[in-house]
Amino acid sequence: MRLAIVGATGAVGHELLSVLEKSSLKFDELLLYASPRSAGSTLKFKGQDLTVQVTPEGAIPADVILASAGGSVSKALAPAWVAGGATVIDNSSAFRYDDSVPLVIPEVNGEAALKHQGIIANPNCTTAIAAVVVWPLHQRFSVKRMIVSTYQATSGAGAKGMEELETQTHMVLHGKEAQASVFAHPIPFNVIPHIDSFQDNGYTKEEMKVAWETQKIFGDPNLIISCTAVRIPTMRTHSEAITLEFERPATPDEARELLRAAPGVEVRDDPAANLYPMPLTASGKYDVEVGRIRASLAFEGGLELFVSGDQLLKGAALNAVQIAEYLQEKGALKEKALS
Amino acid sequence: MRLAIVGATGAVGHELLSVLEKSSLKFDELLLYASPRSAGSTLKFKGQDLTVQVTPEGAIPADVILASAGGSVSKALAPAWVAGGATVIDNSSAFRYDDSVPLVIPEVNGEAALKHQGIIANPNCTTAIAAVVVWPLHQRFSVKRMIVSTYQATSGAGAKGMEELETQTHMVLHGKEAQASVFAHPIPFNVIPHIDSFQDNGYTKEEMKVAWETQKIFGDPNLIISCTAVRIPTMRTHSEAITLEFERPATPDEARELLRAAPGVEVRDDPAANLYPMPLTASGKYDVEVGRIRASLAFEGGLELFVSGDQLLKGAALNAVQIAEYLQEKGALKEKALS
Repeated sequence: MRLAIVGATGAVGHELLSVLEKSSLKFDELLLYASPRSAGSTLKFKGQDLTVQVTPEGAIPADVILASAGGSVSKALAPAWVAGGATVIDNSSAFRYDDSVPLVIPEVNGEAALKHQGIIANPNCTTAIAAVVVWPLHQRFSVKRMIVSTYQATSGAGAKGMEELETQTHMVLHGKEAQASVFAHPIPFNVIPHIDSFQDNGYTKEEMKVAWETQKIFGDPNLIISCTAVRIPTMRTHSEAITLEFERPATPDEARELLRAAPGVEVRDDPAANLYPMPLTASGKYDVEVGRIRASLAFEGGLELFVSGDQLLKGAALNAVQIAEYLQEKGALKEKALS
Repeated sequence: MRLAIVGATGAVGHELLSVLEKSSLKFDELLLYASPRSAGSTLKFKGQDLTVQVTPEGAIPADVILASAGGSVSKALAPAWVAGGATVIDNSSAFRYDDSVPLVIPEVNGEAALKHQGIIANPNCTTAIAAVVVWPLHQRFSVKRMIVSTYQATSGAGAKGMEELETQTHMVLHGKEAQASVFAHPIPFNVIPHIDSFQDNGYTKEEMKVAWETQKIFGDPNLIISCTAVRIPTMRTHSEAITLEFERPATPDEARELLRAAPGVEVRDDPAANLYPMPLTASGKYDVEVGRIRASLAFEGGLELFVSGDQLLKGAALNAVQIAEYLQEKGALKEKALS
């Protein structure tokens, strides 16, 4: 099986290489692609130097393509990759709302991946981090209403987002004024309630992604979901405060028990010992941390909880690799692409 | 009228002096008190150097005392100050839940201050910032349910909180490990869902303050309020994502119109121009910024909005001075304290 990464030199590309080194995914060849700016550089994989090539305009000689070069690249090129015989696992939002494209979190709806027609979409990072935790609760108690406030890291804007935070924090600490370039406003010591573009309904696209994608992944278009998405000055892990109303009443103890048994989730919930989810502990971790689980004061039988998940891992690279692993385990990866 | 500040050298004390310089409050004398550690130092007020004295154990020769030296100091000493004839405006949580002590935001329930028995409590910063915005909406649409997620600055822990953020951010940027002292965990580039102590119900006291205090200030013990309080690496302005369910349906346009006319509030809500509340613009400002006003996807006829308010100003010093101004305007400040 030949594997390709498109967007290999970005922040998610970097994590894809690292996740693949530890992955059970079997492949014979790894091809790396990026924009002309990065082409010719080399990246280490299992001790070997792999040369990054320019992403071609047409087909790619790989059976599985992990695409993470942004929506416009995926939109323009993925059809040609599929025509060339590849299965595309796309990290952009280009195809997520296409009815013929499965949107997959393996712990939630892995089987949906088996019905793909060439493209499988990887969810938005904020969605994936919440969904992997809320899904086991939804199965048992049936979520009726979900209210989310996010605390999103600069990594959501890629490596350049993290660089902007680091460089400009230095500047501010030395009394200089920060000039925003990646973000709409200076991010050091600031909070920006604006991620992705504003929609007609006053919500940002990032906020609507959480609603649309969770509904699609859970297979329930009637789920009531509202989100406020906020950028804060952290590096690479998103946190979310989540309030849940259920059809059937839940208790914190039941929730903790369910979540302790849930794949992809680490219950970190011992307030007396100052244990709760935080970017400091969740960064670099595959599991999404959940804690602060308590009976909701807003909804009888509801719950409130706090999650922190590495935006670049479960929110991107890890989930994409897990989709490929799932397909391979199910014998659903065919080596059929052109050479 | 003789005015005293207890806790004059802290972060709120510093702001009290600055707010008083611009205030319409008339007073003949200003006495400054602090702990023995700071006593003897001088602070500037209208160009004059005022010497800070050690807070005495007993009465203070002032008619009005603005107390901001923490709950234990207020709890221990305020009764003696009142016995000495002073009116105490207390910034701590020591007396806020005492039925005989009015808890006051002048824009909301100023008249409650007139019924004081010596002590008037200044609300928690997070409460004050949300309440000044939600109150006009509550009057028109009647809030049924209020769900709050906070983005709280390090100034909530005083000057030492801001110092810890600044010093440790320097350390982290230079590759050194941050050791938390003021906060439970290192704060640079981190998110800590833990402010004040944990209660038996799994909520922190900070979270419960928002519920208890808003109910008391609005005069409605049945208001349903749930809060998640989160410390983030910002300096001095708290932000809050607020979801509101109403008895009577509201529209964003109605809300904006109401809030434009509301005292203490600045509507900053033009997403197309990247205008919304942020610490960067709200810091140092008396008004609380509100924006991102949109029809709630969670509650029909409900609203979602985002606020940013200077924790040290409306969240503390400004509100305290405004209470004193209100009492003076109403002729309710008697010069009766011992000399």
